[in-house]
Amino acid sequence: MEKLLENIIESNRRYTVQGELASYIPELTKANKDALGIFITTLNGEEFYAGDNEIKFTIQSISKIISLIIAIMDNGKDYVFSKVGMEPTKDSFNSIIDLELNDLNKPLNPMINAGAIATVSMIRGKDKDEVFSRILEFTKKLCGNEDLKVNESVYISEKKTGSRNRALAYFMKSTSIIEKDVEEVLDVYFKQCSIEVTSKDLSKIALVFANEGVSPWSEERIMPKEVTRIIKTIMTTCGMYDASGEFAVNIGLPSKSGVGGGILAVAPGKMGIGIVGPALDEKGNSIAGVEVLKDLSHELELSIF
Amino acid sequence: MEKLLENIIESNRRYTVQGELASYIPELTKANKDALGIFITTLNGEEFYAGDNEIKFTIQSISKIISLIIAIMDNGKDYVFSKVGMEPTKDSFNSIIDLELNDLNKPLNPMINAGAIATVSMIRGKDKDEVFSRILEFTKKLCGNEDLKVNESVYISEKKTGSRNRALAYFMKSTSIIEKDVEEVLDVYFKQCSIEVTSKDLSKIALVFANEGVSPWSEERIMPKEVTRIIKTIMTTCGMYDASGEFAVNIGLPSKSGVGGGILAVAPGKMGIGIVGPALDEKGNSIAGVEVLKDLSHELELSIF
Amino acid sequence: MEKLLENIIESNRRYTVQGELASYIPELTKANKDALGIFITTLNGEEFYAGDNEIKFTIQSISKIISLIIAIMDNGKDYVFSKVGMEPTKDSFNSIIDLELNDLNKPLNPMINAGAIATVSMIRGKDKDEVFSRILEFTKKLCGNEDLKVNESVYISEKKTGSRNRALAYFMKSTSIIEKDVEEVLDVYFKQCSIEVTSKDLSKIALVFANEGVSPWSEERIMPKEVTRIIKTIMTTCGMYDASGEFAVNIGLPSKSGVGGGILAVAPGKMGIGIVGPALDEKGNSIAGVEVLKDLSHELELSIF
Amino acid sequence: MEKLLENIIESNRRYTVQGELASYIPELTKANKDALGIFITTLNGEEFYAGDNEIKFTIQSISKIISLIIAIMDNGKDYVFSKVGMEPTKDSFNSIIDLELNDLNKPLNPMINAGAIATVSMIRGKDKDEVFSRILEFTKKLCGNEDLKVNESVYISEKKTGSRNRALAYFMKSTSIIEKDVEEVLDVYFKQCSIEVTSKDLSKIALVFANEGVSPWSEERIMPKEVTRIIKTIMTTCGMYDASGEFAVNIGLPSKSGVGGGILAVAPGKMGIGIVGPALDEKGNSIAGVEVLKDLSHELELSIF
Repeated sequence: MEKLLENIIESNRRYTVQGELASYIPELTKANKDALGIFITTLNGEEFYAGDNEIKFTIQSISKIISLIIAIMDNGKDYVFSKVGMEPTKDSFNSIIDLELNDLNKPLNPMINAGAIATVSMIRGKDKDEVFSRILEFTKKLCGNEDLKVNESVYISEKKTGSRNRALAYFMKSTSIIEKDVEEVLDVYFKQCSIEVTSKDLSKIALVFANEGVSPWSEERIMPKEVTRIIKTIMTTCGMYDASGEFAVNIGLPSKSGVGGGILAVAPGKMGIGIVGPALDEKGNSIAGVEVLKDLSHELELSIF
Repeated sequence: MEKLLENIIESNRRYTVQGELASYIPELTKANKDALGIFITTLNGEEFYAGDNEIKFTIQSISKIISLIIAIMDNGKDYVFSKVGMEPTKDSFNSIIDLELNDLNKPLNPMINAGAIATVSMIRGKDKDEVFSRILEFTKKLCGNEDLKVNESVYISEKKTGSRNRALAYFMKSTSIIEKDVEEVLDVYFKQCSIEVTSKDLSKIALVFANEGVSPWSEERIMPKEVTRIIKTIMTTCGMYDASGEFAVNIGLPSKSGVGGGILAVAPGKMGIGIVGPALDEKGNSIAGVEVLKDLSHELELSIF
Repeated sequence: MEKLLENIIESNRRYTVQGELASYIPELTKANKDALGIFITTLNGEEFYAGDNEIKFTIQSISKIISLIIAIMDNGKDYVFSKVGMEPTKDSFNSIIDLELNDLNKPLNPMINAGAIATVSMIRGKDKDEVFSRILEFTKKLCGNEDLKVNESVYISEKKTGSRNRALAYFMKSTSIIEKDVEEVLDVYFKQCSIEVTSKDLSKIALVFANEGVSPWSEERIMPKEVTRIIKTIMTTCGMYDASGEFAVNIGLPSKSGVGGGILAVAPGKMGIGIVGPALDEKGNSIAGVEVLKDLSHELELSIF
Repeated sequence: MEKLLENIIESNRRYTVQGELASYIPELTKANKDALGIFITTLNGEEFYAGDNEIKFTIQSISKIISLIIAIMDNGKDYVFSKVGMEPTKDSFNSIIDLELNDLNKPLNPMINAGAIATVSMIRGKDKDEVFSRILEFTKKLCGNEDLKVNESVYISEKKTGSRNRALAYFMKSTSIIEKDVEEVLDVYFKQCSIEVTSKDLSKIALVFANEGVSPWSEERIMPKEVTRIIKTIMTTCGMYDASGEFAVNIGLPSKSGVGGGILAVAPGKMGIGIVGPALDEKGNSIAGVEVLKDLSHELELSIF
């Protein structure tokens, strides 16, 4: 297995040169564009890794699944999906068009930025600090890693330059999708995107989904089984931005990517997979990471379809 | 099992009054709006049914998966998806907008009308009669039913009133997605939509997918395993029109619906399911049929997620 | 003439019941929905009026032509129109779609909200107070009315509830159309929309355009002739929101409306017309005011076409 | 005057290299890309010309104003504009998006292809030959030129390759904007676009508008004054495709262009102007022709604004 992972990493490393680092905030351009690594944890407790699996990166959009879990556990599925849709879209993650064209002005799903910001606005807490604290603590629990923290310079950079996200949020404020103060909601959103993780952390989170919501190490149920089912479904239909359909056909694993270069992939009943590769394709997914998952899914016949 | 099916049918029959018959062609308004039936075939050869499972209806959009199989087997996956995308869309099945906004003017996926018409145009044959004949024969083989035939009055009605489909097809002709004569392609498309089936036929087709491409009765391989995987994936992300995301979350079975009131649903490794219920919701899916599948999926824990 | 005006006002007053007061800010719903008045000043100095011409209302979108004049005089026509387009649009005044679909992310024209906010951002001044002060002083000069002032409660209401305008502005910040601080630009925009005027004030501003930029009372040139030509053209193609085309056909006068119920209309070489009628049609134009102008244009053969 | 025209033509001829010939039908690529000519007829009967004013070209979209006149005279303004809007659009002339997004599925105006095709469908005649014959006869009358005829090879080329126009027309058939047989309507449309004219012919048509509907040579009233006013208004707001707004600001003459390279421009009460210059800008307007009109409008102060 270790050998297989090494081969897959090395044979796909060439794709990194075809990608670009995320450039919308200056901090992200400091990443190592050539890096590529993988970490796998299986349900029976084995760990496998290869490549640059130890480098740290910000979780970015992968945090969207964490805030969605909390929002559902706080408010129930019905309330959450009365404010945010469940439909995939061919538009890019920061598109604002659908908010206007859509009859109800609902963001189409919780994996695009608009939907994720609306989701964050539904998480309970007496103020923004409590809301964020709940998100961070829950992420630590999912990873089994008490040391997670926010990358402050990325957070400040996101906050300073987040005009497009402000546009999305104020639009939703104008249509009453968001009820809280916009700047407070965005502050939490920028912070959760700036949590620093490794591919190992992502593989641990994925493993909880692979185990239907029960922590494989503590045997504690972290979330109801139904919630894991909802999240896995939405990752499958919407998790890889506007390349989700193609990813489902070619790879067939519930997955979520972030512009920090991470991909979290779930092989239900089998393993949790974490990938890092900061060079992105034009949709915003790790360009070499997607290829790594394609090879891995074929070799191990992991597709859920 | 029979009892379960009867209960599910009877308890969901009340939804039929909330739906509407497809009205875009006069012939379809002659269907029985109150009808609701189900037919299940399991991999070990058992058959279960309840309700109005014997009524006939036209296959309509469910035929899109059949022409997609043939187009892939004729041309290879890469060629087909160079002309038609794999991405789900929030737009309705007969939307023309995406053809113009999309960079490559590719229809977004093979389950919307534009994509299905483009798919039909790629099927080989010396003329339109041969193309259609290949589709009909393949459908018979999938169902194990030699008696399938076209409902002529529906076909004529479709052909006469299909202005929206002509608009889609001529648009694709103008962007070279369609290379053949538009009227010939449409003639095949209208005909394949007019093939008359029962819920039993749909359950047999679904069973072939549940069995990864091998006919459970003849043990003949009807299509490569990879093709069944592609089709099941695309049914999951795009099969229920612009309600596919919600359907995946709530039901979690690769499915395809048609405006004739049919739904074909695959429980991989377990069973093939055929539903009939001509009263449609506003997206074009059988309104009571979706509820039947929801109950069935919950009761038997069929979701693939 | 007075008789004609009275007849026109009284015969069109019935339209007010078919309209609605602007409701997006609470303050505007306090207006008198039944009110309808007109004030005309001719180039040879005569004044005519009828109806509720004396009531005060906020200038709202009519201020967009004033900030456009100043922005052009500050930066030159070429610079201004490198940031804001000149093309009419069928989309409503607060639409955000075009900002995303448009290749250059330029707002389509200076009469929709996005374009007006971008225009305000180009006006010179050491801080927002100086920018607004320049706008207010210029408006006073156009009206020959030193008493103009901001309606503070409307201004505060706009500022508090202006989420849609914030969305537009932050979107333009994200695409570098707006370079200044967004909240400072919006503060000026909200303030200029809240300047309180009467139909007489509007008729005086219109008269300056009718006189090609020279104040008819002081004989001072207030703006270059070319600027008046640009403004009159843009009022004709874009001044009445997404009803501009129909207004041009039916009435044919360069005009600008505001959701406060005002319409400013220019009869070049002849007269300046100010209308007040707070009941709006669904496009946001004074519903009875448009009818008044239709009758007036026909009676006096004022159309420029 | 002749000297002025010669100078303007020669100084703007350099723009022709920056443009492209219309390429959507093979026949149009046979035009002389370097050609540029102008013909002016004044209301007092003088004629001036310069450059390649004698070359023939197909009238293309300029025919849209002719069929609009006839449709209004046949059906009344109210009926025509119940089927076709009057609003300018920022979308290109062959866009199909607005037909779907628009609430009523009405084409936005009669100058885009969809609107023009709908307009043609309203012209009376017992069959398509009579409809076209009426259009051709009316065009002859407007030009005072009995020799006008269709360029058969352009007509055949248009008919053979007009898939995009078929898409527009079938879409409108599906929404009942078009009631007649689509192919018959398109045949008339393709034929009217293929009428061959010279810049002199265009200047004569323009002169009738400049004279408010009365033929300056026969003194016969060819159309009601109100119709000329409607046409001039729509030319101003929509006549130059999605560059109409900028054209109005820079030139200010009611005008209509065609992809054959012609521009017809009206200087009300003064003159009719015909331009030919087959090299087009990216909007589809004669690239050098627009520059010629800009210089001419400035030199002679022709802007109506």
